[in-house]
Amino acid sequence: MTMTRLTPDLITQTYAAIKDATIRTPLVPASRLSLQLGIDLHLKLENLQHTNAFKARGALAKLLTLTEAQKKAGVIACSAGNHAQGLAYHATRLGIASTIVMPEGTPFNKVKRTEDFGATVIQHGKGFDDGVQFTLDLAAKNNLTFVHPFDDPHVAAGQGTIAIEMLEQAPDLDVIVVPVGGGGLIAGMAVAAKAIKPAIEIIGAQAQVFDAVKAQFDNAPTNFDGATLAEGIAVKTPAPANIDIIRQHVTRVDSATEIEIEEGVFDLLSAEKLVAEGAPGAGLAVIKNKLASYAGKKVGLVICGGNIDSRLLSTLILRGLVRDGRITRLTFEIDDTPGQLSDISRIIGEAGANVIEVIHQRMMQSVSLKEAELEVVIEARDAGHVHDIVSTLRGKGFRLRTDSGI
Amino acid sequence: MTMTRLTPDLITQTYAAIKDATIRTPLVPASRLSLQLGIDLHLKLENLQHTNAFKARGALAKLLTLTEAQKKAGVIACSAGNHAQGLAYHATRLGIASTIVMPEGTPFNKVKRTEDFGATVIQHGKGFDDGVQFTLDLAAKNNLTFVHPFDDPHVAAGQGTIAIEMLEQAPDLDVIVVPVGGGGLIAGMAVAAKAIKPAIEIIGAQAQVFDAVKAQFDNAPTNFDGATLAEGIAVKTPAPANIDIIRQHVTRVDSATEIEIEEGVFDLLSAEKLVAEGAPGAGLAVIKNKLASYAGKKVGLVICGGNIDSRLLSTLILRGLVRDGRITRLTFEIDDTPGQLSDISRIIGEAGANVIEVIHQRMMQSVSLKEAELEVVIEARDAGHVHDIVSTLRGKGFRLRTDSGI
Repeated sequence: MTMTRLTPDLITQTYAAIKDATIRTPLVPASRLSLQLGIDLHLKLENLQHTNAFKARGALAKLLTLTEAQKKAGVIACSAGNHAQGLAYHATRLGIASTIVMPEGTPFNKVKRTEDFGATVIQHGKGFDDGVQFTLDLAAKNNLTFVHPFDDPHVAAGQGTIAIEMLEQAPDLDVIVVPVGGGGLIAGMAVAAKAIKPAIEIIGAQAQVFDAVKAQFDNAPTNFDGATLAEGIAVKTPAPANIDIIRQHVTRVDSATEIEIEEGVFDLLSAEKLVAEGAPGAGLAVIKNKLASYAGKKVGLVICGGNIDSRLLSTLILRGLVRDGRITRLTFEIDDTPGQLSDISRIIGEAGANVIEVIHQRMMQSVSLKEAELEVVIEARDAGHVHDIVSTLRGKGFRLRTDSGI
Repeated sequence: MTMTRLTPDLITQTYAAIKDATIRTPLVPASRLSLQLGIDLHLKLENLQHTNAFKARGALAKLLTLTEAQKKAGVIACSAGNHAQGLAYHATRLGIASTIVMPEGTPFNKVKRTEDFGATVIQHGKGFDDGVQFTLDLAAKNNLTFVHPFDDPHVAAGQGTIAIEMLEQAPDLDVIVVPVGGGGLIAGMAVAAKAIKPAIEIIGAQAQVFDAVKAQFDNAPTNFDGATLAEGIAVKTPAPANIDIIRQHVTRVDSATEIEIEEGVFDLLSAEKLVAEGAPGAGLAVIKNKLASYAGKKVGLVICGGNIDSRLLSTLILRGLVRDGRITRLTFEIDDTPGQLSDISRIIGEAGANVIEVIHQRMMQSVSLKEAELEVVIEARDAGHVHDIVSTLRGKGFRLRTDSGI
């Protein structure tokens, strides 16, 4: 077997092969964010790709390299995320059986979505490492082709086709920001983009708590500080082949904190009307962290996936409104006498804010027995508006505090 | 002054005029929904238009018809919604002063977004009718040009340019579904689409509780049953000129209930990763209501806007998960003795579901003093999974009920 290498030619050939079954996702101007941030930002919507993530490209690229015998035997992968769905979708479409190994305790909707695309899902082991060995054993036993999510030149070439499309859609792009996990996406895109336009800059984005590629790039110690919202790029062991390419072609790898990633996802939702998962949130976050370096440039950001859990998204939206000062909790210490809530509600209403929730506690509080603690959650225009309302309430003699310390 | 008429030529000329300052929004395959519904659905993403709604097209079209004197004097409109933002955005961009009248009590974020685009916002009157008279008076007094949101051939021509783009992007579309309020969007699109492709079908979508255009089309009584989630298409008095065109070119106008509209918005979010407001939710809902009539056809749906309130969206997501059976409230009648919550939590955990929230009430309940009511909100795989969990709990002797009646 000859070693295939990730070259511009391989990516061009791969693009010709996968093109017809791949959505040419739009590259759209992020007009509201560009206005807010003072940059010229454009978004490549791989969240609108089949299975709502770029992984479908690489999976299809790999499937198309299989021999008839391999196709007949089927494929296997170890993934609870977008790689699983992308592989299941295209395998089923091509009449190839697919088996996906996920860790025990994988959220239901991930199992279900992958099964819905036609895969057989096996839940095994506590984490990724357990799962990989089990997967490799099962592959050997049943003669299945193991499809790696990023350590495979065909897979990386599939992901790299995104750069071909972006530079067709906007040849004047100056810089592309790419979320980085195992390195397949950025390696493929860097090779393709640099071949088309050598002057283009490629910048990687990682989560600060899961920064294996950044650490290797910077020759610095790695952080693995726990869970990240950007679970799609939470990879401990990136592929050495991808790292070599990243060192050669990528300007730098930046990282973002969890709160910055969360804000990035919220921004994409509220300003650009796009459901994006944590990884593209990290991409936007690293741009926001170094705005000056993007001034005057035409910037492309890969919205690499949209598979964020709905319940998480619902909570993230509320937290965003709290951060923006639109939702605030006021905690009153009141005499436990009738009429207090009525007075408070009236003052808040007259100030033009809405009462969302009232919690009246007589137990479990820090105040004395004859007093009560009343929590009123309000929706206001912004932090300044909350400040005015709190001042008015204090002027009327109410004792209260807010979570934001006003 | 000659009467301008909404003709294919006017729309073609308008398109040439507005093209450079208008985002050519993508038409994308709705691949997950198409798979689920068994139809071939494509979405025109006007939620990615400037100001996140199609209204920017019509507003710009009108602004470009003004004389220099009119531009210098400025424009005025009465709108709390997308028309306001679209007009403010393009007016400011063109150096034209804009005044927007909104009803008193308009939500803050709508005022703020419009002000952010450079308009002067005046809050006046209790509703639209109050506001319109005030707006017309102010226009006359200050010599401002009043820009109507839909009863103007230039505005309708601007909206109609969407059809030109859709038929360039997918000439083989068989039917286009268009949300309908005052009729400007569908009238413009119908005239443009029928001129390009006479065989194309145009279908309107309204909210069942706000169905003025459907009622006139069907010669049936109108419903105005209160508030609708699809506030962008909640218009009581559509323009007679638009109605004439709709009668001539539109196949039918269908309507959707509030719960169907809500489900439509949820579907677009969870399956297609798009933030859409109520109006496009109504569009998807009418398609889902008559799936058989779309079989074998290439269907286009105009995602006309994405400006839905974030807090509403957060609640809508949770309600969607409740409807899907993923989130369920179990209400237990328990003896008020220690250890009960622990037992219940363990059983739920062993069954593979998550406990999201626990509410332990000793007051305000229907059971006797020695008993307590315990509400446990759980996240399960689906309704079948909830059924299994409830059976297990009952088998262990717990008395409980669910909101879904399991």
